[in-house]
Amino acid sequence: MTASRNQDRTGFPPVIENASAQGRIVLVCEHASNRIPPRWGDLGLSEAQRRAHIAWDPGALGLARGLARHLDAVLVHAPVSRLVYDCNRAPDMAGAMPARSEIHDIPGNATITPEERAARTAEIYIPFHDGLHAVLMDRIARGLHPALITIHSFTPVYFGKPRAVEFGVIHDADDTLPRAILAEAQARTRLRAELNEPYSARDDVTHTLRLHATPYALPNAMLEVRNDLIATPEAEAAMAATLAPVLAAAMATLTPEPV
Amino acid sequence: MTASRNQDRTGFPPVIENASAQGRIVLVCEHASNRIPPRWGDLGLSEAQRRAHIAWDPGALGLARGLARHLDAVLVHAPVSRLVYDCNRAPDMAGAMPARSEIHDIPGNATITPEERAARTAEIYIPFHDGLHAVLMDRIARGLHPALITIHSFTPVYFGKPRAVEFGVIHDADDTLPRAILAEAQARTRLRAELNEPYSARDDVTHTLRLHATPYALPNAMLEVRNDLIATPEAEAAMAATLAPVLAAAMATLTPEPV
Repeated sequence: MTASRNQDRTGFPPVIENASAQGRIVLVCEHASNRIPPRWGDLGLSEAQRRAHIAWDPGALGLARGLARHLDAVLVHAPVSRLVYDCNRAPDMAGAMPARSEIHDIPGNATITPEERAARTAEIYIPFHDGLHAVLMDRIARGLHPALITIHSFTPVYFGKPRAVEFGVIHDADDTLPRAILAEAQARTRLRAELNEPYSARDDVTHTLRLHATPYALPNAMLEVRNDLIATPEAEAAMAATLAPVLAAAMATLTPEPV
Repeated sequence: MTASRNQDRTGFPPVIENASAQGRIVLVCEHASNRIPPRWGDLGLSEAQRRAHIAWDPGALGLARGLARHLDAVLVHAPVSRLVYDCNRAPDMAGAMPARSEIHDIPGNATITPEERAARTAEIYIPFHDGLHAVLMDRIARGLHPALITIHSFTPVYFGKPRAVEFGVIHDADDTLPRAILAEAQARTRLRAELNEPYSARDDVTHTLRLHATPYALPNAMLEVRNDLIATPEAEAAMAATLAPVLAAAMATLTPEPV
């Protein structure tokens, strides 16, 4: 698997792995990293907070890498913590640079000037989406008929309440691929799988799908895995081995098949 | 009015005029230019064909510049003929690199390899939309509440048939601003104004709106002016003076007004 960065862009472009993959699926991981670049210090957070789910989606990148190998898929992931800028949010959404996440205040985001908001947007959000857009457009132009699947993880306990769902499949405007993935997951795995859990498009979590898949009528889905199930490299690999046939079978149900 | 190009991008980025404008409206002209860069020769077309409406929207850039001045609006326009790449079309649409336009064959587009399709996409389509996206995101981040209005012109005779409509207002998913513009045009001008004429979203002409306005819930509209009404610099200026109060009045009807 090869990794590359687009050198002629400024800021923090996405990391693109497996760029020459021939499979239809383009995997995206907006919350792959808990890295806070030096200019933003520690945002006023403890080391434990900076390792917690509020800073990233633990396990999501490892799972996505495993899926990319199984499915011959390109993988696009963000190199900066969502606490600096959450690339799955538009610049005017509160969650883009959150002052609070679950039960944690984010002191470094308590007061953000319009200039700082524009600077983070220019440095992180715009390069990420330009990079993803270029990958998708190249594949559309070459007739590879891309499908967009974003990979997330969620915390097993949220606001003190345990979550029973293990695998969530979330749709934006087109629910075709998500319903196919759900059906295959229920048929092929023992995972407790649910549609639009623990979040749905109403919670504004489908920004990447809205921006890149819906306008081009690309098949698309957002996947959420409970992070206690992908807490080690071995568990990530096992989950990738479980979910790869699910995604492959769901893709095979799409009609019309591109020629 | 100042013009600038983003120097760190490759290919043909959009020209951005009036970049420091403080008005809410962002004007876009995808078909501003009939320029064919040398690498694409003349696409097998005569000089008359390269000056005709199939290569660009005559008068649209002059009208847009006049509107930008009246409305204190930023203006983003494409520097390459739509016959090389039509920036208002996705890379898999036939019209993106058309083999035929109205009654004219385009010999240079008769057979385009996937590599050439990807190259034109990378050189023209991607830089154009990255540039427009950056303008809009910066304005969203700064709280300027942008609205997106695209400016087009259409030929008075199409496939031999005269068109009576003079001013068309076309909507994508959200018809709020287009209906307000239509109402103000009918109240304030003598133009023969119609909704979704001579084209509509069903003709796939709202790509720019779908890509940049709909996912961010920005007010948006596509305007079409019959090109015999803007055939000289004086006519362009007169039409800008006619339409600027129409657009300003329509914007004032939007609720809620941003603070």
